[in-house]
Amino acid sequence: MPAPKVLVRAQSLRTLVTEVFVARGCKPTDAETIADTLVWANLRGIDSHGVSRVPRYLELFDKGDSAPDAEIEVSRLRSAIVLVDAHTAPGPVAMTRAAAEVVTAAAETGVAWAAVRGTVHTGAIGYYTTHIADAGMAGLGLVAGGPTMAYHGSRAVGVATSPLSIAVPSPGRPVLLDMATAVIALGRLAQLKASGTELAPGVALTKDGRPTTDPTEAAIPLPVGGAKGSGMSLLFELLASGLVANPIVSRYHSDDPAGRRHRQNGALLAIDVSAFQPLGDFQAIVGDTVAAIKGLPREDETREILVPGERGDRSEEQRRASGVPLGPKVWKELTDAATSLGIDVPDPIE
Amino acid sequence: MPAPKVLVRAQSLRTLVTEVFVARGCKPTDAETIADTLVWANLRGIDSHGVSRVPRYLELFDKGDSAPDAEIEVSRLRSAIVLVDAHTAPGPVAMTRAAAEVVTAAAETGVAWAAVRGTVHTGAIGYYTTHIADAGMAGLGLVAGGPTMAYHGSRAVGVATSPLSIAVPSPGRPVLLDMATAVIALGRLAQLKASGTELAPGVALTKDGRPTTDPTEAAIPLPVGGAKGSGMSLLFELLASGLVANPIVSRYHSDDPAGRRHRQNGALLAIDVSAFQPLGDFQAIVGDTVAAIKGLPREDETREILVPGERGDRSEEQRRASGVPLGPKVWKELTDAATSLGIDVPDPIE
Repeated sequence: MPAPKVLVRAQSLRTLVTEVFVARGCKPTDAETIADTLVWANLRGIDSHGVSRVPRYLELFDKGDSAPDAEIEVSRLRSAIVLVDAHTAPGPVAMTRAAAEVVTAAAETGVAWAAVRGTVHTGAIGYYTTHIADAGMAGLGLVAGGPTMAYHGSRAVGVATSPLSIAVPSPGRPVLLDMATAVIALGRLAQLKASGTELAPGVALTKDGRPTTDPTEAAIPLPVGGAKGSGMSLLFELLASGLVANPIVSRYHSDDPAGRRHRQNGALLAIDVSAFQPLGDFQAIVGDTVAAIKGLPREDETREILVPGERGDRSEEQRRASGVPLGPKVWKELTDAATSLGIDVPDPIE
Repeated sequence: MPAPKVLVRAQSLRTLVTEVFVARGCKPTDAETIADTLVWANLRGIDSHGVSRVPRYLELFDKGDSAPDAEIEVSRLRSAIVLVDAHTAPGPVAMTRAAAEVVTAAAETGVAWAAVRGTVHTGAIGYYTTHIADAGMAGLGLVAGGPTMAYHGSRAVGVATSPLSIAVPSPGRPVLLDMATAVIALGRLAQLKASGTELAPGVALTKDGRPTTDPTEAAIPLPVGGAKGSGMSLLFELLASGLVANPIVSRYHSDDPAGRRHRQNGALLAIDVSAFQPLGDFQAIVGDTVAAIKGLPREDETREILVPGERGDRSEEQRRASGVPLGPKVWKELTDAATSLGIDVPDPIE
């Protein structure tokens, strides 16, 4: 039986994480941004991108891969293109800045693209596209990072499990797609390993590149749809990393050991709905479309058809009310980090 | 044994198809555009989107779903947004116009979005993103159409097999991703049916929504990656159809019989590479990245690793030199249509 979860209020968690990042040299507003991004992922049920990452961020600071007090440089390359040069600032800080900048630019030009150069771990990118949707725009985001996934036709790690997110305003919470280009997320692979659950075929390879269903030896996730998933990931690398001249994939596979340092680039697109029609009219169309999908005949009568974002909305509602469940290891790592920085640790709810 | 293919020179095919569309009331330049788009698909090996579609286009004219001489209306909604109102013009005409307009706009603003409203069958959308890449820009395209694919969790047709294409300039031909959001294309399903080849599991449902591997009863393709593929398709509908207030999915599932008429909306995004760096520098990064991918350890030593677009490039080179192979049924339908319009039919190569 797995150890029981620790239940912590979202606000307590946010305060704790903020204090940790302030203690490690982040500006208070940046620390709040990181905390809000990570806790949001936990609220949404994407625990692999939540506060479990705090120790990993601190390691990136220790190794010099990320600077807690990096000065982000923003330049408008053209009227509809913003370059956000992160100078190794943490992903949530750089991407949240980019989301704000791309909305400002799109309000002027109708559509805008923000390129984020040289950041680290960007977290759950639905957080940024949701910000864009909450501003009355359609948002699209993608991220490129270090290779962890097999390329179609290869038996080795070739490209990243690069995510794609699209969010649009609706009458309720935004419709929010946030997906990796892998069949299975690395975090999910770790969960199955921990619970000893056998994998479906076609999900992962061993580290030697052999197909496996054994969770203890599964190491390399396979791309979703074969050539489709690895093709999307490659093109996201060319859009996110290639355009800003900060390639990750080619340097990772080169002889230069520095090519394997952790780095990410990202991009956000915002489309101002009001360029086309009043926001409320668009939201009504989204609402009608969602209703049509939810009304389709079900594969299993007992299982509701969900649209992208709906599962996360429900998790968020439930966890905001009842608290965020954390694995005991995650809670211990987080509170150990806080204690070592002289920060008071809040009491869990249970 | 299947009947032998007819081999026709690409130029002869283009001339024949152009003449058919001129005879059916298209402006000569529009007829050339349709012919070039369809023959391009055949050259690239995407025969399901090639000249086999000519009789389908003529049926759309007959039914009044498409007007051969539609006047396309172009308006710049904001500096970086172009609306191309197709007024039922054929997809290749509307989308090619959009590709030209989006490149013009992006040259001014850095990035631009062209929304194509109310067209019909857009064909192989890599044709349009390739145009954008050939203009020194990164291109992204997506299309929304009538539902043909199951939505994840449903056993019925819910959304379209909506394609996504991304193309970027490289030192050679553009890297070109062009993929449907279904596991299998409808055209491929028809091919397997014709040849009696059993399907892999998880590819399609019968028309009653039962999973099947029998090609004779397979009718509804499943989305790639389950919730991922149907989620992408739904969001493409909201971006392509929702923004221009011409919803397809919600009307298809409504009680209004007109909601099932064939219609498509599309969108193209262009990002001007020169806003970031000289085009040649970007192309070099793309070249290095492609080389790194092609140099990965192979799953099967005898099978080269391909990047998106490479298979199509080879097909195009070979078919430009040797001719386009067409199934006898496709050739007969095409030549019958031509003959009935009083058009001379060229001799095939063999």
